[in-house]
Amino acid sequence: MTNDNPTACLLIIGNEVLSGRTRDANLQFLATRLGEIGIPLREARVIPDVPETIIAAVNECRARFTHVFTTGGIGPTHDDITSECVARAFGVAWEVHEPSRVAMAAEYARRDPPIEFNAARLRMATLPKGAVPIVSSETMAPGFSMENVHVMAGVPRIMRAMFEALAPTLKGGAPILSHTVHADYVYEGQIAAGLSAIQAKYPALDLGSYPYYRGKGGGVALVAKGTDLAAVDQAAAECLALLAGFGAAHEGEPAPE
Amino acid sequence: MTNDNPTACLLIIGNEVLSGRTRDANLQFLATRLGEIGIPLREARVIPDVPETIIAAVNECRARFTHVFTTGGIGPTHDDITSECVARAFGVAWEVHEPSRVAMAAEYARRDPPIEFNAARLRMATLPKGAVPIVSSETMAPGFSMENVHVMAGVPRIMRAMFEALAPTLKGGAPILSHTVHADYVYEGQIAAGLSAIQAKYPALDLGSYPYYRGKGGGVALVAKGTDLAAVDQAAAECLALLAGFGAAHEGEPAPE
Repeated sequence: MTNDNPTACLLIIGNEVLSGRTRDANLQFLATRLGEIGIPLREARVIPDVPETIIAAVNECRARFTHVFTTGGIGPTHDDITSECVARAFGVAWEVHEPSRVAMAAEYARRDPPIEFNAARLRMATLPKGAVPIVSSETMAPGFSMENVHVMAGVPRIMRAMFEALAPTLKGGAPILSHTVHADYVYEGQIAAGLSAIQAKYPALDLGSYPYYRGKGGGVALVAKGTDLAAVDQAAAECLALLAGFGAAHEGEPAPE
Repeated sequence: MTNDNPTACLLIIGNEVLSGRTRDANLQFLATRLGEIGIPLREARVIPDVPETIIAAVNECRARFTHVFTTGGIGPTHDDITSECVARAFGVAWEVHEPSRVAMAAEYARRDPPIEFNAARLRMATLPKGAVPIVSSETMAPGFSMENVHVMAGVPRIMRAMFEALAPTLKGGAPILSHTVHADYVYEGQIAAGLSAIQAKYPALDLGSYPYYRGKGGGVALVAKGTDLAAVDQAAAECLALLAGFGAAHEGEPAPE
């Protein structure tokens, strides 16, 4: 797919995803939402809580993509090192962000019983110099944007609130539109040549072919994606006609198993 | 965590994961199984069906990690380009693998009605020169290993069968052992300093802190990981004692919500 849209990269930071303890729940949400606002996700990486790895990934990706989103590693414990690493990646100081400190102190004092604003919690108000906080209703500790790098929590509920607080500030491109058709008992090996011919007619679109498996058999779903609605719909209609040559073809995704 | 274990990287290849259409189901399985056989996963990347991106990622990662595993992009359609890209990454020919072609032809002929062994399906028997097929019971089309790069299907059922066929041929290290403790109504900001002190005592281990949220409240789980069982258990016991200073602490993961 070739277009002038801005691009996004996601860095999922956390040993717990790489060890299999935690199944990531943020990639699919962000992929979907970024497509909707026309900043398609072009790469995602899961990286460990290792400073050199985080710093190198931030610097490589902020140069290659319009926006870099990170999830994870902004809590108060020793393995929460994303914020410090972003400061090091940008070569700026990592210092207490006074408005965030004041806001957190006020909120901690308001609780009954009051929450102690200790050194560990103060780390969550410590940001790279020049960062703009991302404030959400879900947590007292902010995420932040440092130029084109947007640092968010790993907990899905908090990440989503931070993303929705951030999204209106991002300059998106044309939304990525999608049109899916499918047919049971039709297989990729049958339609591959015809699908290649349709893809060749629509170089500005992405045509994807996805087999599915069900207890009773399987089939294939074909997905046309792009920013031009008429072209997307026309390519999907040709895919539907292609499938209909081999079986009963339908609009939309196949029913869930 | 510092040890002499071999390392693994996973490349998840497919536009459908980056668009949000498909939620990856392979990372967590492979992360868990690779930890069990002592080849811990150190990075995972989701990359699009773009030849230059795939070739660059394969070449970067096969130099940095002991093993690279790929999922996706080995079917018969135009967007299945992993195999060709691995050949290009290694600078070798991409050619019909005669034993695979013969096996697939025999299986296709055996079906009732027989399956046509057309050009699209022949692509699935086309491998980088020098590759060793990964044969599984779940599909006629093979995966393959090219030196330290192991190319598998994206469909989870097939990927798992391919991995289990491959696993006995991989030289693993010491299994990564894990011991988890948790406490409801205890929060990371309370135990951060104590946890840092435990981590400092056990530099060969990874201590992770993971908040959880439940309808009734929340808590924190602490996970000790490493290859030395006695050290893992001892660190976990210290984490349990730390948590017990703030609330009712328990062995194991918190109950699912």
